[in-house]
Amino acid sequence: MTYRETPDIIVSRLPVYLRALSHMQAQGKQTTSSQELGDQVGISAAQIRKDLSQFGEFGKQGTGYNIAFLIGKLREILKVDRVWDVAVVGMGDMGHAIVRYQGFADRGFRVSMVFDSERSKIGAKVGGFVVQDTREMVSAVRKAGIMVAMLCVPAAVAQEVANQLVEAGVRAILNYAPINLSVPKGVRVQYLDPSVGLQRMTYYLK
Amino acid sequence: MTYRETPDIIVSRLPVYLRALSHMQAQGKQTTSSQELGDQVGISAAQIRKDLSQFGEFGKQGTGYNIAFLIGKLREILKVDRVWDVAVVGMGDMGHAIVRYQGFADRGFRVSMVFDSERSKIGAKVGGFVVQDTREMVSAVRKAGIMVAMLCVPAAVAQEVANQLVEAGVRAILNYAPINLSVPKGVRVQYLDPSVGLQRMTYYLK
Repeated sequence: MTYRETPDIIVSRLPVYLRALSHMQAQGKQTTSSQELGDQVGISAAQIRKDLSQFGEFGKQGTGYNIAFLIGKLREILKVDRVWDVAVVGMGDMGHAIVRYQGFADRGFRVSMVFDSERSKIGAKVGGFVVQDTREMVSAVRKAGIMVAMLCVPAAVAQEVANQLVEAGVRAILNYAPINLSVPKGVRVQYLDPSVGLQRMTYYLK
Repeated sequence: MTYRETPDIIVSRLPVYLRALSHMQAQGKQTTSSQELGDQVGISAAQIRKDLSQFGEFGKQGTGYNIAFLIGKLREILKVDRVWDVAVVGMGDMGHAIVRYQGFADRGFRVSMVFDSERSKIGAKVGGFVVQDTREMVSAVRKAGIMVAMLCVPAAVAQEVANQLVEAGVRAILNYAPINLSVPKGVRVQYLDPSVGLQRMTYYLK
């Protein structure tokens, strides 16, 4: 089966389904329906059925979805049935928070290297990691075969650091810097910009 | 003019246009084209023209967009031509990072109150703010008329705190807790979940 043609908008909803299903499972539930899942994530049951049908037949008419099975399938589709090593660049407040964040491990990710360019930070320990010099980043990331990075550097240097990460073989960048990055084809960027999230909502405020 | 009928997917792109335009302005540029803006944000020129045409005629054939004018219009549409007071709940690593984050002020937001439920944190100072007891949150937020909040509490208590914020009059919640929130109609939630951002990208990795 090839997933190539699946629209990105559908792909973007799968991690949200996975998160909600994992939450149900943690609460001891074994089966769910597209209706119940839809209520949890604020998406219509019809949309959920349509999204999932892109990838196969996961539910049974009348009995709904087996949660453990669907979680397994979604993890496989999203390629988080393995653990990805992640490089974190920029050890300011946000970088610190990310390195200490406990929520990655069971969702497919593990911080494995941290970098900063400030002399006062290099060599220090953050959350069990020794902060490495960004000047060693390209070779260290390439050598480790790391394909995923989180960018927590100031906006002014984000593009330059992103270029280096791409040069090192990184293909997925989660960008916390409030700036759009230019990357070559085949490299993905996702943005976590709190102001953008807030502005999407103030539009609707009276 | 009423903006009511604009699809949310269009609204979601406006803050991204605004960020890119502000960046161009900071670099001293005065005009731009839908082509150039599109290259910056990774969206087609045609889509940008279509999105903006929902709200009026902002560009001129041949001369493109006046950046300062378009920034002003987008800020007006997104209602960030004012400054919104924001309550931040949860003073863990992420809460700390957010309170100290310098990027909100010129984008329409200002942290104005911070809360935590842990006795050891209440009364302490974080980024110039005295941490208040969440037990005083409903009355304090209501009294101040705050409509926007950022939620940085553990997933296990996020729904309960969200309920209290809604009770206090909050209508827009930026949620850092890795859990879907149920909120009444008229209340908006946006999620900043790094694992979701990463999983959207690993799907595409080979």
